[in-house]
Amino acid sequence: MSPPADQVPSGAKPSGGDSPSRFDPVRFFAGRKVLVTGGLGFIGSNVARRLVDLGARVQVVDAHIPDSGANPVNLADYADRLELFIGDLGDPATSAERVRGQEVIFNLAGNVSHIDSMQMPLMDLNANVRAQIVFLEACRYHAPDARVVYASTRQIYGRPTSLPVNEQHLLDPVDVNGVNKMAGEAYHTLYQHVYGLASISLRLTNVFGPRMRVKDARQTFLGLWLRRVVEDASFEVWGGEQLRDLTYIDDVVDAFLVAASLDVAPTQVYNLGGSPPISLFELAQRLVGIAGQGRYSVTSFPAERARIDIGDYFADDSRFRAASGWQPRVTLDQGLRQTIDFYRGILDAYL
Amino acid sequence: MSPPADQVPSGAKPSGGDSPSRFDPVRFFAGRKVLVTGGLGFIGSNVARRLVDLGARVQVVDAHIPDSGANPVNLADYADRLELFIGDLGDPATSAERVRGQEVIFNLAGNVSHIDSMQMPLMDLNANVRAQIVFLEACRYHAPDARVVYASTRQIYGRPTSLPVNEQHLLDPVDVNGVNKMAGEAYHTLYQHVYGLASISLRLTNVFGPRMRVKDARQTFLGLWLRRVVEDASFEVWGGEQLRDLTYIDDVVDAFLVAASLDVAPTQVYNLGGSPPISLFELAQRLVGIAGQGRYSVTSFPAERARIDIGDYFADDSRFRAASGWQPRVTLDQGLRQTIDFYRGILDAYL
Repeated sequence: MSPPADQVPSGAKPSGGDSPSRFDPVRFFAGRKVLVTGGLGFIGSNVARRLVDLGARVQVVDAHIPDSGANPVNLADYADRLELFIGDLGDPATSAERVRGQEVIFNLAGNVSHIDSMQMPLMDLNANVRAQIVFLEACRYHAPDARVVYASTRQIYGRPTSLPVNEQHLLDPVDVNGVNKMAGEAYHTLYQHVYGLASISLRLTNVFGPRMRVKDARQTFLGLWLRRVVEDASFEVWGGEQLRDLTYIDDVVDAFLVAASLDVAPTQVYNLGGSPPISLFELAQRLVGIAGQGRYSVTSFPAERARIDIGDYFADDSRFRAASGWQPRVTLDQGLRQTIDFYRGILDAYL
Repeated sequence: MSPPADQVPSGAKPSGGDSPSRFDPVRFFAGRKVLVTGGLGFIGSNVARRLVDLGARVQVVDAHIPDSGANPVNLADYADRLELFIGDLGDPATSAERVRGQEVIFNLAGNVSHIDSMQMPLMDLNANVRAQIVFLEACRYHAPDARVVYASTRQIYGRPTSLPVNEQHLLDPVDVNGVNKMAGEAYHTLYQHVYGLASISLRLTNVFGPRMRVKDARQTFLGLWLRRVVEDASFEVWGGEQLRDLTYIDDVVDAFLVAASLDVAPTQVYNLGGSPPISLFELAQRLVGIAGQGRYSVTSFPAERARIDIGDYFADDSRFRAASGWQPRVTLDQGLRQTIDFYRGILDAYL
């Protein structure tokens, strides 16, 4: 169904008809021209590495913004197997140049820090909305047949009013990042409806694993927790009763790959969950137990964070599982162990 | 409950406790310092004029963008009874200067053309999101006690999946303007939740009446219909079966005024409807019948419009009616007659 790119007409759209049980990533991606935006970051770099392993012809574009998740270390050992471009998709010429000729685009560029977004709302707007419009306009004119998979987020739901959260839950984001990601996702949906651009959005929950940003808690509490455990130091648990679900990075990469093969009708928007819900208390205990080192204390939320905290969240991702056949392959404990092992010895490269 | 501003401490917040049946606009607004953004436009100018009539101390700010709804004629006869500033709220200094010291702000600035938004998405983003963030930041720092009433739109719902549409309907906008207005409204809600800014958003449906833009169909089909009828000329009805509700401008002004008195909890977001649903066919017949002149033909949708049309829409606004006691006072026929009468003789000033 999906021959390598050199056996299909130039500009032909990858087949979206593969049924869930038949998705074969090698057959789908080998030889294909694929772009990963935000590819120096956590999820982007893991997607890019997997694509290289599958034999895809991979280009990466990243603005390499200081204190974002972008880290050249993430792709250093793959440097001769992909093409890396430093550039801002908010620049129309850069976007046009990068998307032209691509068959599949994994769109992971963006700001992911909630706290930064509150302090610099216009910066977040530029990254998560303005640059996305420029990118989508570039796709519309220069890569109209490309498939786009967009990294959306559970943050757009705000504080859940029912659990688990499915895609019928109202969108009511509680922070600037949530508002802008909501708009960014809506633009992807719009460009499909109006211009026929084949895009799929995955609403991610807590993603963790190798190559995540662990320097501080700016992007996710779990990054800092992992750092402290690897340093055999102490970390703070804010609140602790909140229930969350987590997805290990390898499972997220699986999800992005299969998402590229899905039909864009009847929907383009999917939750992506993973682990059963776990309280932050229990997660902290589990982490320290698996590492055999580190410790934690429980404190109340800092005021600045409490105002934008979403409370309990866990996803109903049955729609995505049914459409794609995806399911997580890595247990929470396995994922935590693999992540701790990754950072042991290499932690300095992420500080 | 709401003494004139000179009898309350400087910066005191207008009382939000008036019950629906007791709202007295004169008592609430007489002597108050009130800002109307986008005040040269259709709704903004009508709000500003009413506020002047009520004895409020009115300032208007408007960017006066060509081919927007801004028209100096709308306030020309009130020029000595209010202060008009031409300026862009996207400029932080302008926003700060204008909001400082205001007690109530009616925020009607923004681009309202769906078709322009599709052709110039970054322009629409600037007007409806970026400038709104700058405005809200200005309120946060320079008018933290002001009450803000924001003009949202039914467009953020997209194509209704159930009718009538209440506030639990999913947001799924089908055009760029809808996405950006969704974000603009979400920012208003956010600045209340996080920073305590007292804001209320009204999701408007088709608003019509004196001082609306009638030059072309860029903002609403009904504007052009009205022009053609007053010119005793022919207009096109696209489709015709679509059901819509309409609100006469005087009723919208009533709604904005009472909204300024509402508590911001438990919700800040309200639909505003008006007339019973009517098909566009019947509306065209009604318009021609009342005017005693003009004619129409029925054609299919232009492709460019069909892609962003929302089909049937009419609002369930029971939440707003219950909270405010508001109800429309002008029938559709009365409103159409008054609008036609307004443009007879003065049409050239709106072309």
